[in-house]
Amino acid sequence: MAVMGNSAPDPETPLSEVGEFEAIALVTARFEQGDHVLVPPGDDAAQVRSASGMPLFATDVLVDARHFRRDWASAEDIGRRAAAQSLSDINAMGGRATALTVGLTAPPDLSIGWMLSLADGLAAECAEVGASVVGGDMTRGDLLMLSVSAMGEASGDPVRRSGARPGDVVAVRGRLGWAAAGVAVLGRGFRSPRVVVEAYRRPEVPYDAGPEGARLGATSMIDVSDGLVADVGHVASASAVVVDLQRSAFAVPDPIAAVGAAVGVDPLDLVLTGGDDHALVATYPPAVKLPETWTVVGSVLEASAGRPAGAVLLDGEPYEGTPGFRHF
Amino acid sequence: MAVMGNSAPDPETPLSEVGEFEAIALVTARFEQGDHVLVPPGDDAAQVRSASGMPLFATDVLVDARHFRRDWASAEDIGRRAAAQSLSDINAMGGRATALTVGLTAPPDLSIGWMLSLADGLAAECAEVGASVVGGDMTRGDLLMLSVSAMGEASGDPVRRSGARPGDVVAVRGRLGWAAAGVAVLGRGFRSPRVVVEAYRRPEVPYDAGPEGARLGATSMIDVSDGLVADVGHVASASAVVVDLQRSAFAVPDPIAAVGAAVGVDPLDLVLTGGDDHALVATYPPAVKLPETWTVVGSVLEASAGRPAGAVLLDGEPYEGTPGFRHF
Repeated sequence: MAVMGNSAPDPETPLSEVGEFEAIALVTARFEQGDHVLVPPGDDAAQVRSASGMPLFATDVLVDARHFRRDWASAEDIGRRAAAQSLSDINAMGGRATALTVGLTAPPDLSIGWMLSLADGLAAECAEVGASVVGGDMTRGDLLMLSVSAMGEASGDPVRRSGARPGDVVAVRGRLGWAAAGVAVLGRGFRSPRVVVEAYRRPEVPYDAGPEGARLGATSMIDVSDGLVADVGHVASASAVVVDLQRSAFAVPDPIAAVGAAVGVDPLDLVLTGGDDHALVATYPPAVKLPETWTVVGSVLEASAGRPAGAVLLDGEPYEGTPGFRHF
Repeated sequence: MAVMGNSAPDPETPLSEVGEFEAIALVTARFEQGDHVLVPPGDDAAQVRSASGMPLFATDVLVDARHFRRDWASAEDIGRRAAAQSLSDINAMGGRATALTVGLTAPPDLSIGWMLSLADGLAAECAEVGASVVGGDMTRGDLLMLSVSAMGEASGDPVRRSGARPGDVVAVRGRLGWAAAGVAVLGRGFRSPRVVVEAYRRPEVPYDAGPEGARLGATSMIDVSDGLVADVGHVASASAVVVDLQRSAFAVPDPIAAVGAAVGVDPLDLVLTGGDDHALVATYPPAVKLPETWTVVGSVLEASAGRPAGAVLLDGEPYEGTPGFRHF
């Protein structure tokens, strides 16, 4: 972390009094640059080494009061979550992110201290995979919004959504429903169970799962951002197959069961439809011997008249709940 | 351009009635994918071939009513301008863009037709350099905002801001002040001179200038987005030198002179401080023989007690006007 000089403004200073170039300089000083960054921030574009010569490229948008809430999470946590979303996209292709850029609009009364904590969160999450924040743009806007773009590398062919085949198993690595339980709790004005609130604030993303899944021979992969049912639905559609999830495969963790009981929702629904934990779900040929980090939760079936391609079943029956979060 | 099927919604349909995934599918269908796109839109990340193995990476944010106005330009023009801003960043490094992603927030009452025209504008501007729109994210927000990220390639070392040396000449390729004259006219409720209004709506970006400048041996380069004085100021700061611009080097085009007279501003100020035309300004060692596409407009001087590093002079005197546009 860069040490601020004597000229560092009071953290409470609103952005409108700091000035665009000064704010950018202060934020940029928070971003350590890896050896793979050939041209660091400060020019019209950064330059990053691509080991494969075939970089991955993804962008996600987060909007205040929609994808995060400033009263529910600290600036640093919001930075971590914003970075995690794009880093997880690269993970889901079987790759590892190397560089991030951040486009940001911010209301002028936002403090420079909040912004620097956001930057620290972005940097901390990037450090988990060895990525660097190499650039971006910030401008005034009445809406606080982050658009995070990630560049990354896969060591082999990226794992796509379209490769699932009938007979494959469906397996998950990472947590499901924890962040959704946190949201359910926070949305009702509570701050406990602490463990689900923390899960919402700071997801534990299984960043090794993507490269591991690729190495194990995953035929398809996706990260759970909209909710498991919605996201395996994307795989089922892209692969023109049906996915059948097994209810018995999902052990509902105690804190999620507690939240379900407290707020009156089926805890399994939190597990099946909650996003934001950034678990990975992959399909594997049945012969693949999976390490115990992966949990088999279902199987891939052929589409047929009664079960069209793209369908997601639960124990052979159509899933009746909302599959996941939709923006519009 | 993809041909819409029978299921294409009425162009007036608000986004809130189209649904996120349908809107993304409709928009994505507008984007042709080049052969260098190895994984096209539809997965968690796209994959793009990088010829050099050292891709360039840049992001710019555009906000409604701040960087564009929907009553001043069509959706297609706004798409072109949004793409141009990031494509120009790659140009300014001496490179050529290969891929764009677009993060977008849109109010739910925006029509799907407007959005598809925006997509057409993005695609059309990308086609000028052979880049493809490979991904992005769209979400509801009360503010219409675009965050455009570009990936690109330089054939040699990228040209940075920090390489200008005393004795170098300063040269420009592209138009200066045209878009600013257009804004001056539109801001007063007029629609003519047509040629400056069109220049604002659809910039003619010199996309060959970046690779050409690199080939010619430019020691530094930047695109004029904040205004010439502000942007050569960035070069002067990064290079720890002073730039002296020569008033006589700037031929004020007739339409800009006419706008200056009509709105009561010095037309040279429009030329010196207007952004948005995306001209390139570069410094070259004096021995370099420049083709006539480049206009020498000044020289690089050593910093001294009376003229600190980063200063921009006009005929040897400090420039007195506003150097360019500042966001906060």
